[in-house]
Amino acid sequence: MNRKISQLRIRMEASGIEGLIISNPINIRYLTGLEAEGYLLINENENFFVTDARYIEKVNSKLTIEDEIIAQDGKDLDQDDFLNFFNNAQKVGFEEDYVTYEKYQRILIKYRPKELVEASRIIENMRIIKSEDEIEKIEKACNITDSCYLHILDHIKIGMTEKQVALEIYDFFIKNGADGLAFDTIVASGENTSMPHAVPTNRIIKAGDPVLIDFGAKYKGYCADMTRTFFMQEISDEYKKIYELVKNVQEKALEKIKSGANGNEISKSVENEFSMNDYDLMHALGHGVGMEVHEKPILSPRINLDLQENMVVTDEPGIYIQGKIGIRIEDTILVKNMNSIPLTKSNKNLLIIS
Amino acid sequence: MNRKISQLRIRMEASGIEGLIISNPINIRYLTGLEAEGYLLINENENFFVTDARYIEKVNSKLTIEDEIIAQDGKDLDQDDFLNFFNNAQKVGFEEDYVTYEKYQRILIKYRPKELVEASRIIENMRIIKSEDEIEKIEKACNITDSCYLHILDHIKIGMTEKQVALEIYDFFIKNGADGLAFDTIVASGENTSMPHAVPTNRIIKAGDPVLIDFGAKYKGYCADMTRTFFMQEISDEYKKIYELVKNVQEKALEKIKSGANGNEISKSVENEFSMNDYDLMHALGHGVGMEVHEKPILSPRINLDLQENMVVTDEPGIYIQGKIGIRIEDTILVKNMNSIPLTKSNKNLLIIS
Repeated sequence: MNRKISQLRIRMEASGIEGLIISNPINIRYLTGLEAEGYLLINENENFFVTDARYIEKVNSKLTIEDEIIAQDGKDLDQDDFLNFFNNAQKVGFEEDYVTYEKYQRILIKYRPKELVEASRIIENMRIIKSEDEIEKIEKACNITDSCYLHILDHIKIGMTEKQVALEIYDFFIKNGADGLAFDTIVASGENTSMPHAVPTNRIIKAGDPVLIDFGAKYKGYCADMTRTFFMQEISDEYKKIYELVKNVQEKALEKIKSGANGNEISKSVENEFSMNDYDLMHALGHGVGMEVHEKPILSPRINLDLQENMVVTDEPGIYIQGKIGIRIEDTILVKNMNSIPLTKSNKNLLIIS
Repeated sequence: MNRKISQLRIRMEASGIEGLIISNPINIRYLTGLEAEGYLLINENENFFVTDARYIEKVNSKLTIEDEIIAQDGKDLDQDDFLNFFNNAQKVGFEEDYVTYEKYQRILIKYRPKELVEASRIIENMRIIKSEDEIEKIEKACNITDSCYLHILDHIKIGMTEKQVALEIYDFFIKNGADGLAFDTIVASGENTSMPHAVPTNRIIKAGDPVLIDFGAKYKGYCADMTRTFFMQEISDEYKKIYELVKNVQEKALEKIKSGANGNEISKSVENEFSMNDYDLMHALGHGVGMEVHEKPILSPRINLDLQENMVVTDEPGIYIQGKIGIRIEDTILVKNMNSIPLTKSNKNLLIIS
């Protein structure tokens, strides 16, 4: 059987659920590799993928006998097929964080499960630890992102707008083999950098501006996430000090990230270094990266986390002074037993573009 | 009070709900113009927008006294504030098609409403009839889409890939004042045109290919939706006949669309003309367009629909021969009392690019 579904079945047994209805397309792609609309149904003996005429041909050509997944056009199933599917299951799980209340009601009517229970992110919890194949895809997404950064440093000029830079990033990704953006690109300049979630505007990049770029490619469904902040033509001593502080804590945290380390303690030490300099850690230090750009786990002073081998997380401290400036440096990092491996490798030394 | 919320309150009264929890960001933007994360809460006397520190400043600068919306940072509210909010409401509505089962449970705990009831798309139903201001934005989105089509006709060449054409469309939109894409662009060439939901691939456009482009700009939150199919260098007599048939039924349907006409009957006559020529109407004839590219109403032989003034709908018949060809022609159309006004105006005559 498909290895990931076998692993899922072990977790289902441990959780005491005999059936599962999976409708989140990211979870379906994770478990099966399929990119098609439909539902993955798992009962005691079988794995069913219910889709429609638009996808059935593609789905059948992609699945192999080893997958042990039966694909069917929903039109070829009748009400009894659905009613029978979970006949032997006492508890059937569903994705409570994805399924709308309306769809939940439809599931009750369609399958009449004995007990419909929250699956409690059973698949999302599997996704925290990445396989070799997944790591390769994230690495490739990070490589494209690194190349794009070099391209942007070559092209960015005083007089360009934030939106123009964002468009250049998108174009580079598409032309260099990415699926597209892992998330909406942030290009912020000048005082706009002080908003952690800035949206690119028509603001013209000027001499003396800090420019913060938070971006990442998606490759075969996997995300990269990187932030760099640099300066146009000149930088004040005040900003230089902030930059060096952010860079210093980012690199120190990076060194501490490895299997067995505590995410909360690493985050706390960043928070301490910031507060010793009268700054706050305004947002979490980092988050998991995989098929979604924000997924489990979270690195934060207030969330307990034991890091494990083959987690992929970000390390992204930032300092923001409202209406003035924001400086953030972020890498996507692979957690290993003895150390951490940054998958985004772009230079972090203070850069002043002349 | 904000005019749209006043109208919503009339509908709430008619539906017998005294309170409403709105969390779908599209509905929030529709009612308030706000683009900020949060919840819009409506009770007997007040309209509350609960957001967070990231947005509160922007929100307060956007709202006017006439809006009669009180914006608050959720951090400044305590459990009692939420419990008191719907004190006088017997029935409180929520968006059952947007709220996940998990969030539904949280609403129950947070507000303890006497009765939490499905709002039954109360806002989506308002959105079916467009205001003058909304029509202007859709018109502008359609104008940008028309200009983009001319640009693509100028630029498309044998040897380009579908993906390159899609990227050119995206770039044109961004450089010409659009927010971005109204939806993922379809660029299909050759046999790929036979899939109604094709995704742009690296297939190289060749002489003799049909090219189908289904695309639309988004402008200030409003969508355009247009499809054109043209041919590279040459066309067979068989395809020419199909093209003329599709164009003919599309234009006939366009003439019938007006206030008081039946969407199902218009769709049936398209279906009849297709079946007289041994083709099927594989998908609906059209759908509403507004803040979402697919919204209510649906034009289909099997869905009863009385068209009303200031609905905006598409008219998009298509013929698909599996593994061979697909030809679709689509306009976004404003329904008026005496006639219909196509908002996308690009030429529909058979076009062979030499």
